[in-house]
Parts: sequence; structure tokens; C-alpha cells
Amino acid sequence: MLTVANYDATPPLQSAIWVPLNLILFQREETLRPLPRTDERAQHVLNVLRRQVGDAFDAGIVNGPRGKATLLAITDRQLELSFAWTTEFTAPDPITLIIGLPRPQTARKILQETAALGVGALHFVRCDKAEPSYADSTLWHSGEWQRHLEAGAAQAFCTGIPAVTHGQLFSDAIQSLPASANRIALDNYEAPSALSQCQPANVTPLTLAFGPERGWSAGERDLLREQAFALAHLGTRVLRLETAIVAALAIVKAQRGLM
Amino acid sequence: MLTVANYDATPPLQSAIWVPLNLILFQREETLRPLPRTDERAQHVLNVLRRQVGDAFDAGIVNGPRGKATLLAITDRQLELSFAWTTEFTAPDPITLIIGLPRPQTARKILQETAALGVGALHFVRCDKAEPSYADSTLWHSGEWQRHLEAGAAQAFCTGIPAVTHGQLFSDAIQSLPASANRIALDNYEAPSALSQCQPANVTPLTLAFGPERGWSAGERDLLREQAFALAHLGTRVLRLETAIVAALAIVKAQRGLM
Repeated sequence: MLTVANYDATPPLQSAIWVPLNLILFQREETLRPLPRTDERAQHVLNVLRRQVGDAFDAGIVNGPRGKATLLAITDRQLELSFAWTTEFTAPDPITLIIGLPRPQTARKILQETAALGVGALHFVRCDKAEPSYADSTLWHSGEWQRHLEAGAAQAFCTGIPAVTHGQLFSDAIQSLPASANRIALDNYEAPSALSQCQPANVTPLTLAFGPERGWSAGERDLLREQAFALAHLGTRVLRLETAIVAALAIVKAQRGLM
Repeated sequence: MLTVANYDATPPLQSAIWVPLNLILFQREETLRPLPRTDERAQHVLNVLRRQVGDAFDAGIVNGPRGKATLLAITDRQLELSFAWTTEFTAPDPITLIIGLPRPQTARKILQETAALGVGALHFVRCDKAEPSYADSTLWHSGEWQRHLEAGAAQAFCTGIPAVTHGQLFSDAIQSLPASANRIALDNYEAPSALSQCQPANVTPLTLAFGPERGWSAGERDLLREQAFALAHLGTRVLRLETAIVAALAIVKAQRGLM
């Protein structure tokens, strides 16, 4: 049904532009007032979707319902919209990712792809072999990171946005996890078995930990084992971090019957 | 062992640069003569890996063995190298992908990621809803496409390069498949079940077909069914083509115990 709705709206062709907008997302308070024409969403509705007064487009509220927005009026300054919500919000899968702080360009891809695939939370953490300055990127300090999450969710035609932290210490992040979670750490070097051989119970929350691009330190591996993380690998091929994250999410979602 | 070798060599940090070179790949004939200093691989060995005379680095022959190259001499014109091959070539998984011609920027990502994940063949085909001009891109006519395959293989620390065709008609491509292959077409709109529910026999070749970004036409779906393709989906989320391909490959490789 999602995809049929999407079929009627912006075709998936849009999915390959840098900020895909199969679904136009709004903060709840933004739906209570007109949308300024200077807003990129207004530009997209008028110039890409080519909607005119009386036309509708697919819209959603961040972490809220999805439905249709109708263009009531267009002035030089703003678009007046009405909203009709048809699809209740469903929370994303209870999957938490812990990720060693990657270079900002890699983090941008990870933010978009994990929001599109659907996870509950992302923690970008300081690790022994992660470059500390990555935490100082404008990606994190300008709020840009939120736009990548919204682009990923809009791409996926969903309104759920993962909770994100950045810059925590790895040790703090894994010690503050929910006690019940299944825990798997991806590790190319010391993992005894492939991720597909670690069958997580498919009803409980799952935490997947990915080291930084240089891998885990010995101390981090010790802490992971203390904290009951199983170590798993993705085969013998060395994958980019963003590719490994998409592959691992696909494997665990397939185990849950979601893909 | 691959990963141990890689641990000793360029750290996976290199994996995030645009052309990752965890492994320096050569055509067989290139190993019979010095490497010009103007070659980007020579620049990488001297300026990124910082190798000096007597030092070794990880090297491989495209679709051939892998091992170590030793820097025998550096002149202002060229690098003199000796090679010691330690690891026999292993053919990639017998997985063939048929992909509706995507925009060139998407095709670049697909070439790199599928070569890194390991497939036997890629056929980028003309489909009813694919933009025909995508086949005219310099990506395909300049030979650039081969560099993306080699970058993906080098990233993965493997020497196997998929066989690639581009611009065939979809109908010609699927009618020339090996008769024995398992056949699955990804389809967001009419697939009865998720890819994880289609259990391909894990010993035979597998063909996965991905429509263009706008999806399959009705006629193409009819032909897929005639040609014994099962239709499968990846859940309700609308994924970018390149994300869907990585996810689907991860799921089928996990079913084969490879990830």
C-alpha cells in the first residue's frame, strides 16, 4: 500500500537525487501555519512535483502519521496547505546501532541509509581508533545530520526518524544499553562466525555495534565481550563501513521476515 | 586470512576514500614491465602507502592470484617491482544481476559495491521505464565503468572482477540466461513475498533482476513470469536502487552462509 501510494506520487525515480522527497515531511508545528515559498519543500512541491492550487501530494509528520497535503493557495510569500492523515505512525524496528565515528562523508551516507532502512537509534561513538576530530564536523554542529535522516525517511516513504547521539564515549554508550537487548558486534578480525549464523531472537530489541573504519581496539573487544556482545563477521571481503551497515541490517531484517 | 593480510597492509581506513586501494590490482601483462610513475597506482604506493625501495605492498592480478609486490627500484620515470603470489584466485559467487539502466551516478555506486560484495556478472539492460540516454553516458563509453569495478574489488581485498554488459535489451538478457539458474526479480508492487522467504537452492547459480528506478512495466513482469522468475520484495520501504541491491545481495549471501 505504501508503494502503491508512492506509485501515484513522485515516482521512485526521485529516489536517486541527493535529497529524495517521495514524501514531504513536516514537524507537527509546521503543519499549523503556511509554508514559506523560500522553504526547499515549497520549491520541490511547485517546481519538481509541479503541484498547483487544488492538487495534493504525499506528506507526513516526523514520527507521526502520513497522508496527503492539499495546496489551498499559493502567494508570493507562502503556500497554504491542508492535511489529511490516513496512515498511523508505526515505530521503526527496535534495532540500535553503535557506530565508531566515521569521516563525515561516510556518516552522511549512513544517516540517510539507516533512516531509509529503518532503525530505532544510532549512536556515533568515540573509539580508540576513530579520528577524534570527526566529532567536530559541521555535519554534527550545524544540525545538517538531521536533514540526512529526514531525507532517508522521505526516501523510504516513512515518517520515523531514528534517535541519534554523537560523540559519546564507546564505553559509556554500551554500558547504557537496555539490559534485554540481543547484542552483536561486527568484527572482521576475531569473530568466530558469520552474522547469518547468529540468530537473534526476533522479538527482542537488537543492538549491532560497528567499529570505526580502522576497527576495534583490543580493549574495546574486551569490553564488548564483558557486555555480552557476540562477535560476528560479514565474510572475508573488506567492505566499506556504509556497505557493511546496509548488509548487516538487511541480514537481521531478513531474519525477522521484514525484507 | 584475507583480513589478517589486510590488517598488516593498508588499514581499512583507506576503504572510505573514493578509490579505495587496500589491494593494488594489475593486469597480468602490467606485471611484466615497470610501472610508470605517472600511473595513479605508483602515486598511491609512494605517497599514500609511503613505500620505499625494499618495501612490499599487497597486490593482485585482475581475475588472478593475490600476494605481495616488492619495490625493487624507484627512478624518476618508473617503479621496478617484483611479485610473489601467495593466494590462488577463487571465482566469485555464481550470482548474476540484471539491472535496469540507472542514471550514471547510481551505476557508479552499483559497479563499486557489487564488485566489493562479489558477483559473477552484471547486465545493465534497457527497460521500458529506463531513460534510454543513460546508455550513452561517458561512464560506459570511456571505459570508466571498469575502474569502478577494480576499485570495488580492491576495496574488498579480492581480485575477481564481474563480467559486465550494458545496453542489451531486457528481453534479450533474460532469454540468454543459463537454463539452470534460480531466478528472482525484485518488485515493490506485485511481489507476493519477501526475498527472505524465497529460499534459493544454495548450490546452483542465482540470477537477481532489479527493475529501473521507475520499476518494471506490465510487459516486463509478464516476461519475467514466463521466464520462471519468482517476484520478491524487500519490505514496504522504498529503497534507492543501490541500497536495494546491497541489501538483496546480503540476504542471498547470508542464505548461502557467506555473510
